[in-house]
Amino acid sequence: MTMREKALEMHKQNPGKIGTHSTITVESQEDLGLAYSPGVAEPCKDIEEDINTVYDYTSKGNLVAVVSNGSAVLGLGNIGPEASLPVMEGKALLFKEFAEIDAFPLSINNKEVDRFIETVKALEPTFGGINLEDIKAPDCFVIEDALREALNIPVFHDDQHGTAIVTLAGLINAMKLVDKTIQESKIVINGAGAAGVAVTKLLLSLGVKDVILCDSKGAIYEGRTERMNDIKQELSHVTNRHQEKGTLEDVMKESDVVIGVSAPDSITEEMIHSMNPDPIIFAMANPIPEIMPEKAKQAGVHVIGTGRSDFPNQVNNVLAFPGVFRGALDVRASEINEDMKIAAANAIANLIPEDDLEPDYVIPNPLDKRVVQAVSSAVAQAAKDSGAAKLHSTNEAVKAPNI
Amino acid sequence: MTMREKALEMHKQNPGKIGTHSTITVESQEDLGLAYSPGVAEPCKDIEEDINTVYDYTSKGNLVAVVSNGSAVLGLGNIGPEASLPVMEGKALLFKEFAEIDAFPLSINNKEVDRFIETVKALEPTFGGINLEDIKAPDCFVIEDALREALNIPVFHDDQHGTAIVTLAGLINAMKLVDKTIQESKIVINGAGAAGVAVTKLLLSLGVKDVILCDSKGAIYEGRTERMNDIKQELSHVTNRHQEKGTLEDVMKESDVVIGVSAPDSITEEMIHSMNPDPIIFAMANPIPEIMPEKAKQAGVHVIGTGRSDFPNQVNNVLAFPGVFRGALDVRASEINEDMKIAAANAIANLIPEDDLEPDYVIPNPLDKRVVQAVSSAVAQAAKDSGAAKLHSTNEAVKAPNI
Repeated sequence: MTMREKALEMHKQNPGKIGTHSTITVESQEDLGLAYSPGVAEPCKDIEEDINTVYDYTSKGNLVAVVSNGSAVLGLGNIGPEASLPVMEGKALLFKEFAEIDAFPLSINNKEVDRFIETVKALEPTFGGINLEDIKAPDCFVIEDALREALNIPVFHDDQHGTAIVTLAGLINAMKLVDKTIQESKIVINGAGAAGVAVTKLLLSLGVKDVILCDSKGAIYEGRTERMNDIKQELSHVTNRHQEKGTLEDVMKESDVVIGVSAPDSITEEMIHSMNPDPIIFAMANPIPEIMPEKAKQAGVHVIGTGRSDFPNQVNNVLAFPGVFRGALDVRASEINEDMKIAAANAIANLIPEDDLEPDYVIPNPLDKRVVQAVSSAVAQAAKDSGAAKLHSTNEAVKAPNI
Repeated sequence: MTMREKALEMHKQNPGKIGTHSTITVESQEDLGLAYSPGVAEPCKDIEEDINTVYDYTSKGNLVAVVSNGSAVLGLGNIGPEASLPVMEGKALLFKEFAEIDAFPLSINNKEVDRFIETVKALEPTFGGINLEDIKAPDCFVIEDALREALNIPVFHDDQHGTAIVTLAGLINAMKLVDKTIQESKIVINGAGAAGVAVTKLLLSLGVKDVILCDSKGAIYEGRTERMNDIKQELSHVTNRHQEKGTLEDVMKESDVVIGVSAPDSITEEMIHSMNPDPIIFAMANPIPEIMPEKAKQAGVHVIGTGRSDFPNQVNNVLAFPGVFRGALDVRASEINEDMKIAAANAIANLIPEDDLEPDYVIPNPLDKRVVQAVSSAVAQAAKDSGAAKLHSTNEAVKAPNI
């Protein structure tokens, strides 16, 4: 069977990939009377009295909505909410498998930004967190900002921040191998969509001084007028402080790190030769990377990561989102802030002891079961330290079983 | 422990009462690659090509949203979406336990009718059906009508139709005992909220000629101006054709059946004495019925049902909604129409053989496991006969396991 046939068959045999189940039994009148009317009125009354008890009596504290409008699904584009459902269900499955989080897929029929925002806002009472997924840029930035502002539960657009966290983890470890610091490196990011923007912001919040963001028109700089939007405008004021102009090829000169998140086959050996010694590349266009790892290494690249599972150093979001939400839910964080993301990146990076680091092993395997525990602890601690946590003692925390 | 303590303890030990689980395992790179990227792209592409395949590859075909705005929760009133969550979760639990339906509770933060409608409309791609719950009248009528009109999946307000179906089932059997017909009986309904209105409509669609609906101001008649709303206005033209005016006491005279769905302790022995021979009463105000069964019987009532589990003939919606949705989902019905509701009522009634019928046994026990199978088959058949079914052979149907 081809991969396509296997994938279709698996989905036909297991439509949804997740299901619901009862955590109590209903076999007697008493069971029925406690779980439903009249007994259920008791927790309802308590929650009406003190809304925080909703975390004690309902699923809310361990429940994440995986929400999309289907406008930018995988590499398939704007395929609509129904066609995006298998991805949302897959994501919910991974939340459960990796972090014992109950996650529920919701593909929403709202292409229009304002309506999508209103719909997700209305869902707040039920959920402990919102994972946004596969929403096209720049809509995703507007949506996430509005929801973070409006809601008291964490909102996290995984295509942005999941990718940014895992990339940063790989970069932290790659830097140890080449004996440079992230802060002093010149880092070029190619692609101003969800992932490129989030990587840029995370690097800025880490204090990197020389970050240049490129799109299909080349470097974004202060004063550029062609093909700009609000987020590019915003970033033009805080990146590329030397005002470099030109193509990706032009600005890659004398750079230390290039992070590609959009354009297959866009990096040549010559471009790598123009970089500083010991170049580092994250070539995450999928399924065809910006440059194939073997070719990159021949051209002198020291560390290369991709989005693919068949090459070393896979930047796979599953390393981040389960632990990030686990940690956030455990301390009932009101948001997932930059400190929490950086803590997650460090936790992922630190799972590989320095002695084990090598160019082909700067990112742990996505199936490494230690990851979620390390990330969730680090994120929970960062939430407490940064004031985002509403719970402070572990006893209070909604702790998931078995992890 | 008191019932309150038991209910709170049970909810604390099992927050949510339902959870999600994976139906596949994710232990290898291949598992990950089939369930998520890149394999998941295959069902996505198929669904984009033919939207009906969403039923083959996703949870949609066996998934019901249990949706409320928390505006009329049990007898507790407008307690808000968070406080309503335990009820929605309890309902989802019963869907699973009784009919193997995956149901998901969604308490929505939209008191405003139009916004609530827009939010639920946006959820359509994910779900195979919508169960509305605990929404105050008359908003619930406007909401249900708008959603039925807009959506291609069944929309069912259980507080209306679940109650109406089970009441009708009881009434069908009670009629056998007193040797009258529903159609020729004079039936008085006290309470013009969700349940009262739905019972009235279902009786009308059965061809009952003499139905009188009362609210706190007494009988609703054509031309009444006090305390009317759109639905009462509408029903004033098709009920109470003899234009009876006055209080519940006035119009109960020479009636055969009284169905109470609102006012505790509102029926006296004298009022029963004024009814036709062999009176039938459904006294469903909760927890205090319109008249206690023992007192009613002393006054000459032949059959009495209530909403309580500690008396015979409990009108419990769990007899209807699991089988109704099971049947509707199995044939992918586009709606739940009057024919399907009447079929459900007959199926419930017919579970008690005529020889076993007695005044204290006209409605099956809510835990009777035969009910869901009988109701779902009848509803599926009625959906086919009435043209609401999109699937016609059983082979095509999304059949739930183990029921």
